[in-house]
Amino acid sequence: MFDPKPHIRTVPDWPKPGVQFRDITTLLSDARVFREMIDAFVYQFFHHDIDAVVGIDARGFIIGSPLAYELRTAFVPVRKQGKLPFDTLEEAYELEYGQAVLQMHADALKPGQRVLVVDDLIATGGTLMAACKLVERLGAEVVDCTAIVDLPDLGGSFALRQAGYSVSALCEFAGD
Amino acid sequence: MFDPKPHIRTVPDWPKPGVQFRDITTLLSDARVFREMIDAFVYQFFHHDIDAVVGIDARGFIIGSPLAYELRTAFVPVRKQGKLPFDTLEEAYELEYGQAVLQMHADALKPGQRVLVVDDLIATGGTLMAACKLVERLGAEVVDCTAIVDLPDLGGSFALRQAGYSVSALCEFAGD
Repeated sequence: MFDPKPHIRTVPDWPKPGVQFRDITTLLSDARVFREMIDAFVYQFFHHDIDAVVGIDARGFIIGSPLAYELRTAFVPVRKQGKLPFDTLEEAYELEYGQAVLQMHADALKPGQRVLVVDDLIATGGTLMAACKLVERLGAEVVDCTAIVDLPDLGGSFALRQAGYSVSALCEFAGD
Repeated sequence: MFDPKPHIRTVPDWPKPGVQFRDITTLLSDARVFREMIDAFVYQFFHHDIDAVVGIDARGFIIGSPLAYELRTAFVPVRKQGKLPFDTLEEAYELEYGQAVLQMHADALKPGQRVLVVDDLIATGGTLMAACKLVERLGAEVVDCTAIVDLPDLGGSFALRQAGYSVSALCEFAGD
């Protein structure tokens, strides 16, 4: 079983004092490790009849796009406000201070499609929750929300499961 | 030879009047077309001994990451200012009004590595030029700058070639 943890760099006090930032770029910059990481997701979801992978702007694109390629599915970007050019649906979500908005093209998914929602990391779960709502508003089904890293102390994976979603991650960092 | 053009949606007057925006999300949302598009890049670069694919924030991630996966190379994100947590190099580039800054982690590439720089579209070429400079400042070599779409009327591919870089695209939109 592939463990991404030894390949993730922890940057202390970024973006602000007291935060331990989990930097996945060191996982991407080793060709063998990058491929093993994507393959770990592929093995996990290969038999789940996924129709589309939804990747969250922007690190979710780095994981979600090769996963869509390997699973032979569509890739659908969910983006921050003002980045998608066509008709969009949107969902607001809470930030530490104030709100932000996530958008998806209104024609990005078809009713009944089985969707995997992908980001690099699960923290408070706000963006993943908003992405799941967008998927469901288009009549599609969230099969799983997945990420490289879960930070269970921040409550995101718990909140997503409370809301009825399946959640997974390749590793977790807890207790710090 | 795969032609992405029929699968690209043109959104008129976005993000402002008079601009014909070339929207690649329609290319991504068809699983077969998405895979053929990535494979077209793979066939082009398979025999070029690429060590790393550099993808430009954020649509460049969607193309560059599966390409790195298939070519068995590293993937290196180049990002807008303030998004990368570790020590960075940066290059300013011109926007229509004012400047913006592109950053790359200072340890992202090793001297001598052969690098493919990837974005979705070549317009004025400012971001690709800045990305190429970052690659070279780390002692690595730009093998090619590639994109799905070239807009030759905006002069980016010409300027990149004038600066000595190899440039390619899967299709171009000209004369509109």
